[in-house]
Amino acid sequence: MRFVSYENAGIRGLAVATEGDGYRGLLASDSGFPGTLDEIVRRNDFAAAAQALRSGAPLDLDAVTFRTPLANPGKVLCVGLNYSDHAAESAMEVPPFPTVFARFPSGFVAHGAPLVRPRVSEMFDYEGEVVAVIGKSGREIPEAEALDHVCGYSIFNDGSIRDFQLQTPQWTVGKNFDGTGAFGPIFVTADELPPGAAGLRIETRLNDQVLQRANTDDLIFDIRKLVSLLSIGMTLEAGDIIVTGTPSGVGMARSPKVFMKPGDVCEVSVERIGTLRNPVVAQEA
Amino acid sequence: MRFVSYENAGIRGLAVATEGDGYRGLLASDSGFPGTLDEIVRRNDFAAAAQALRSGAPLDLDAVTFRTPLANPGKVLCVGLNYSDHAAESAMEVPPFPTVFARFPSGFVAHGAPLVRPRVSEMFDYEGEVVAVIGKSGREIPEAEALDHVCGYSIFNDGSIRDFQLQTPQWTVGKNFDGTGAFGPIFVTADELPPGAAGLRIETRLNDQVLQRANTDDLIFDIRKLVSLLSIGMTLEAGDIIVTGTPSGVGMARSPKVFMKPGDVCEVSVERIGTLRNPVVAQEA
Repeated sequence: MRFVSYENAGIRGLAVATEGDGYRGLLASDSGFPGTLDEIVRRNDFAAAAQALRSGAPLDLDAVTFRTPLANPGKVLCVGLNYSDHAAESAMEVPPFPTVFARFPSGFVAHGAPLVRPRVSEMFDYEGEVVAVIGKSGREIPEAEALDHVCGYSIFNDGSIRDFQLQTPQWTVGKNFDGTGAFGPIFVTADELPPGAAGLRIETRLNDQVLQRANTDDLIFDIRKLVSLLSIGMTLEAGDIIVTGTPSGVGMARSPKVFMKPGDVCEVSVERIGTLRNPVVAQEA
Repeated sequence: MRFVSYENAGIRGLAVATEGDGYRGLLASDSGFPGTLDEIVRRNDFAAAAQALRSGAPLDLDAVTFRTPLANPGKVLCVGLNYSDHAAESAMEVPPFPTVFARFPSGFVAHGAPLVRPRVSEMFDYEGEVVAVIGKSGREIPEAEALDHVCGYSIFNDGSIRDFQLQTPQWTVGKNFDGTGAFGPIFVTADELPPGAAGLRIETRLNDQVLQRANTDDLIFDIRKLVSLLSIGMTLEAGDIIVTGTPSGVGMARSPKVFMKPGDVCEVSVERIGTLRNPVVAQEA
């Protein structure tokens, strides 16, 4: 099943892809609305939600205002240095365990909404990534059961303000500027993809120029391992998301460097999931 | 005003210190309950809440089951390397900007509840810290206005699993084991303390032995600066908390090293705020 979160006149909606007939959706104000995707993920109730939404009105994805798939994810666990060629271009060693930093949802934007370059930096970089959404809580999850805890996948552009990210040992500040993390538009349930979203092409384009191109098979810690290793210490809860890391080709590592600037359009495509597209604007005065 | 969050038979309660008469509180099931401290912080409505709570029953702080002051803080921004002697003992340079990592509230415990040493590590370290609670949202907050955005203060023990913290460049995993972050018990409104909670003695004791002793005047980035600098990139929202960093004396830097083990009791005291006390237990099988 494929879901999109959207809004209409400020009212939240949820739509599902139907067979051969595009998307159909309901608004929170419609009778039969099955709840937000946050709620459905936490209820693990996708089939019933999809059935309810199929009774809704057709939704024109080219005209709709998207929201991020989840409005209130729990923990947002972002994995760094998880493609070996990206670790190399960053002049960092491949670590023995997943390298994790956090993003806060208050800095997220939806598909189609602008990514915001702050006035204090011109070093606004892109990072295309696959998102795994936790659908079942657990701790110390064995690798063999790890994928039972992942209910679906989406796409993330982990926009990074490089000078702020790298001026201290921890990257949090440069990874959490307002309006710099794009998330969406499609949430695909896990049953629609290869186990662990393996073997999928991922590509980032800036103004139609391909700047990152890789395959999820190249992940150092694949999604099965991430779920198992990250749950050693912390309970992963339904609604948490794992942003799985970016391949090589980031703007900071290019010569000359490439950064996003107002007027640009950045797209991240993941095979069988979709394309996340965002224009870039300057922070308002 | 001084507030404590607690529970009785699973029902959440909130109490306020009264003049000369101890604490008085109401449960969420009582008429006149002014809401949780999370709600009051976001409404910025302390005086009215305190007045409502003074009509409540006397609360015996020695017998009550505490909850963390806030149940659902927003961003939890933890500052590392913010006392120069601690940066030195950690063999890390004092950075030019606050070093920030995140903790997730799902790993928090309240005053009196056990800190949990995981089965995978014996390197469970303490870090006593002052918490500043954001009460008014803002971005790019000038230093001169920064303290207007802080509604109050509390105490944190930033329990850290050092081997997991330090095996990758980002500290997130070792800072977020379940049951390792203690928060509370008292929330003190800002008007009760010196501006920016400056000039307060802070002390951490393990089994009554003093292991950290410092003064908040020794913070490299004081609370005024933290609010101003962290809001350059991200909006600080009411309900966010800043965990301001720990002084020297952590167990990892001692010779021989000192770690928390089952049966220990760890206390963090901050002058004019209170004492956060937690026993240490082993993770259950």
